[in-house]
Amino acid sequence: MHRNLDTNLSHLHEHLLTMAGYVEQALECATAGWRLRNTTKIREVYAIETKVNESHISVDASCLQILALQHPLAADLRLVVSILKINTDLERMVDLAVNIGQNTEYYLKNESEIEVEDLSEMTDEVRVMVREVLDAFVKSDEGLANKVLERDDKVDSFKRKIWQDTTEYMKKNPSAIEQGLNVILIAKNLERIGDHATNIAEDVIFSMSGEDIRHAGKPGKVK
Amino acid sequence: MHRNLDTNLSHLHEHLLTMAGYVEQALECATAGWRLRNTTKIREVYAIETKVNESHISVDASCLQILALQHPLAADLRLVVSILKINTDLERMVDLAVNIGQNTEYYLKNESEIEVEDLSEMTDEVRVMVREVLDAFVKSDEGLANKVLERDDKVDSFKRKIWQDTTEYMKKNPSAIEQGLNVILIAKNLERIGDHATNIAEDVIFSMSGEDIRHAGKPGKVK
Repeated sequence: MHRNLDTNLSHLHEHLLTMAGYVEQALECATAGWRLRNTTKIREVYAIETKVNESHISVDASCLQILALQHPLAADLRLVVSILKINTDLERMVDLAVNIGQNTEYYLKNESEIEVEDLSEMTDEVRVMVREVLDAFVKSDEGLANKVLERDDKVDSFKRKIWQDTTEYMKKNPSAIEQGLNVILIAKNLERIGDHATNIAEDVIFSMSGEDIRHAGKPGKVK
Repeated sequence: MHRNLDTNLSHLHEHLLTMAGYVEQALECATAGWRLRNTTKIREVYAIETKVNESHISVDASCLQILALQHPLAADLRLVVSILKINTDLERMVDLAVNIGQNTEYYLKNESEIEVEDLSEMTDEVRVMVREVLDAFVKSDEGLANKVLERDDKVDSFKRKIWQDTTEYMKKNPSAIEQGLNVILIAKNLERIGDHATNIAEDVIFSMSGEDIRHAGKPGKVK
């Protein structure tokens, strides 16, 4: 006997939140890696990735089952389709946290030379984005989802500044080129985590209002 | 009156192929930019992106309409869900072509110093992946989709080699740091286009067989 649609959607919702919790943990461990010069934390990211990959497959399978057996309509259908997309975004966010872990392993091979204060601030901003977009999803809060979209501009500015400063540092200190490159890649990966948070924010807005705001007002915006 | 499911799926299929054609064009223009030192070609990528963004929204809307009105089942349902995902991948691939265009604009600000032969070979490999995965989708050819997955390892090797060689070059020639950084980012963006081609290959396999092969056999594989 199939459970009813509401119960299944609620179950799916919870599953996605568990997965989102893993994403937060992965981001925390990956960035603690370079903040604390701690490779143990990086190993934790790789373990979290395995769990998220399992959830990724399982959430997709549940969505398909709901679509096949319960034919959700209107807001329920938008929710299932949004969950399919958010699931992909969450999985990619953990991949990016793994990338940050790998960049950090290279970074730690050299003694710290490059200033990473901006990178710390950028990380805090991205973590707030991830936290807020999950809150927006849980509370179906369209206003909060819009706030996440605005926050993305700040993250992009951090990335540009870090790239510029690090490139200048590398020019003056060619021995720091490899370390600098890894700082640049960490910033790039953080920016992409922020981009996925904006994707989720757009999905939350779509799920609630039926309004597709993607590609609106930001022509040529690269994600 | 609603058209029947087969007609709608066939229409959606065609729409996705038009979009895939744009992706191929975008990749060609973006890479022609640095191959031919031609900024006109780069401008074409930005125009293509606008069209792809429109298709992205329209394909998603058609998928939702089919799910809402025609309740596809089994292979048809898997096809619609796969198209939703492939649509996202194609849109991201064009974003990455735009990134390559932007990297190339920076790259062309300096006189060419860095050897880009490997980058040319890597580009050819990625273009073959994109072409093959679209053929696999059109012909529902699982064997070809599997071939695309294998090809991804070669693309990853190219990226590693380009990163290593370019970093060495930058160490010896600090004046080429900015140009080198853009070569590294072009390689990164090409690798990510390849990753999206593997996503599509996995979706083609899933759509045909119902078998979800993601995360299988490649623990910790970063996309």
